Amino acid sequence: MPSTTTALDLTTDVTSLTAAVCDIESVSLDERTLADAVEAAVRDLPHLEVTRVGNTVVARTDLGRDERVVLAGHIDTVPLTADPVNLPTRRVDSAGGEVLWGRGTVDMKGGVAVMLRIAHQVAEPSRDITFVFYEAEEIDSQYNGLLHVEQQRPDLIADADFAVLLEPTDGRVEGGCKGTLRAEVTTKGIASHSARPWKGHNAIHDAADVLARLVAYEPVTRVVDGLEFREALNAVLIDGGVATNVIPDRCVVTVNYRYAPSLSESEAEAHVRQVFSGLDVDVIDNAGGARPGLHLPAAQAFVEALGLPVEAKQGWTDVARFSAMGVPAVNFGPGDPNLAHMDDEQCPVEQYVACEAALLRWLA
Amino acid sequence: MPSTTTALDLTTDVTSLTAAVCDIESVSLDERTLADAVEAAVRDLPHLEVTRVGNTVVARTDLGRDERVVLAGHIDTVPLTADPVNLPTRRVDSAGGEVLWGRGTVDMKGGVAVMLRIAHQVAEPSRDITFVFYEAEEIDSQYNGLLHVEQQRPDLIADADFAVLLEPTDGRVEGGCKGTLRAEVTTKGIASHSARPWKGHNAIHDAADVLARLVAYEPVTRVVDGLEFREALNAVLIDGGVATNVIPDRCVVTVNYRYAPSLSESEAEAHVRQVFSGLDVDVIDNAGGARPGLHLPAAQAFVEALGLPVEAKQGWTDVARFSAMGVPAVNFGPGDPNLAHMDDEQCPVEQYVACEAALLRWLA
Repeated sequence: MPSTTTALDLTTDVTSLTAAVCDIESVSLDERTLADAVEAAVRDLPHLEVTRVGNTVVARTDLGRDERVVLAGHIDTVPLTADPVNLPTRRVDSAGGEVLWGRGTVDMKGGVAVMLRIAHQVAEPSRDITFVFYEAEEIDSQYNGLLHVEQQRPDLIADADFAVLLEPTDGRVEGGCKGTLRAEVTTKGIASHSARPWKGHNAIHDAADVLARLVAYEPVTRVVDGLEFREALNAVLIDGGVATNVIPDRCVVTVNYRYAPSLSESEAEAHVRQVFSGLDVDVIDNAGGARPGLHLPAAQAFVEALGLPVEAKQGWTDVARFSAMGVPAVNFGPGDPNLAHMDDEQCPVEQYVACEAALLRWLA
Repeated sequence: MPSTTTALDLTTDVTSLTAAVCDIESVSLDERTLADAVEAAVRDLPHLEVTRVGNTVVARTDLGRDERVVLAGHIDTVPLTADPVNLPTRRVDSAGGEVLWGRGTVDMKGGVAVMLRIAHQVAEPSRDITFVFYEAEEIDSQYNGLLHVEQQRPDLIADADFAVLLEPTDGRVEGGCKGTLRAEVTTKGIASHSARPWKGHNAIHDAADVLARLVAYEPVTRVVDGLEFREALNAVLIDGGVATNVIPDRCVVTVNYRYAPSLSESEAEAHVRQVFSGLDVDVIDNAGGARPGLHLPAAQAFVEALGLPVEAKQGWTDVARFSAMGVPAVNFGPGDPNLAHMDDEQCPVEQYVACEAALLRWLA
């Protein structure tokens, strides 16, 4: 195996290393080649203890420091496109400066390269570090490498005090994440011919009550560990009726509740059931958020070392998996998240450099 | 052609003739064999002048009477089913008396058989009669034989004073029909991630206004030519949203307005636009109703001769096509309309006999 592994040169600059990591294709479920390369690179570093779980590579220092922090990033990407051809990467001069262009340059092989550069440069970090290079973040969560480590080797992660997930945040620090709950609110009627509606009962008309409650709903903003999480409750889908001459006997409103990480999953469910009390509510999925934990010493040192503004992460990310293991977590990485998954994915090279420098300030 | 035509024996009793008509399969667009048989049968009657338009047969007396009436029925059926096998017909004893069982026994070959029996028995009717045996009522209206006659030979129909459509009414007289208008009421928003709804605008929430207006709507009942037409405005379909993590940018509520025949199509459209004023309304189809015309001498004679209760027809039927040609029309025929199109379509034989007797009282 080692003889066929593409070598990653960790001594090169972070932008070149990002390009090298991108140029090893690793669409979800096809991460073996890149996982092999990452594993080989970190096994070359004597200060790291390396464990492999599937195509996920965990590398840990073991210096007996008072604190342990996680740096984590997924190594898979969404599929390539044929037009434009988005690999191999290329460096392009743009009006705003030089950019690296191609699949993974934003989501999130820049973060992976930064992690590898830190692993290479910081043999004696200020706090113990657990590097997690994990597979299959972009697809159904059953394949998620972080979930597999959580299930099979929780000891590799759960002893950390704080985690940084290097997903793209445009160079800002985004703390924690909101939880997300989806529920179907269903109204039921009685079908009849639409020329004789008095023989039936219109389920779509009954959904007026569901929508009226959503319109009247006033979401709160909760401050959690110093960050503002703005909640939201929205209809995301509505579907009712079977034909244009039939009084509909069923209407389903799918609602999405995004809630602050100070609420538990069961508290979130109770809230949604209260909003729609008296109606038929079926919770179809529910994933709690993540507290940013910015009051903790490890997090405060991180924020101070970076000297960057800190905001709440509004969307759900894998930081919630750390939170579920009792590890507060933030998102911090190079790249504009709005360009993630886009055909023209690209990142200013200065963001890779700035991210590496920020983490070095914190950990060296 | 004549040598291969299945002969229909008009001298037999109406139930046997109904069975014979049913047993000549004539699913929509496959009516040629039955049209040939009907044409041959009426051409044998010297008091009738016969015209064929496609697979539609029109047969007229020409006695110079003061009044002319139409008896009309479609000769096609919905498709057969394999389980149960619904042809050939069979006579079955049931708790309520003998029934004829099979495809077409309700919708509407009993009516066709009654028309053939009247044609055979009444060579010198009290008013001139136009018999219309037409194709393709059960499918898209572009194929409708009555529409084709209206377009190609309006002279065959438009000189009538009154029309009876022998669709199943369970032996009652149902006068005229309501019009039907369908419109799409669309709300438009701005898509965004559902974790950050404040960056978008929720089109499903805006549909709350549409549904609230429907719930608040108070339909009127209008008396037209002595019959009560109960109007209705209902949502029949609703569809909005694209994914469970996206704020929906579009929601479409399809509404169906069933309106009294005293309203024109344009009045109906204006009413719907007024109900949803300020919203995006797209009328997708609109077919006016039919006045029963029960104040007219021909209609009054019909009602008096039958001695049966008269109600308003709530659903839209082909009587509206007569109305559009200036011919008031009623529905009157054997069979329970709730059994039309059902796998176990069946009709008490006494209804065929009663319908034939009623029309003989009026026309003989």
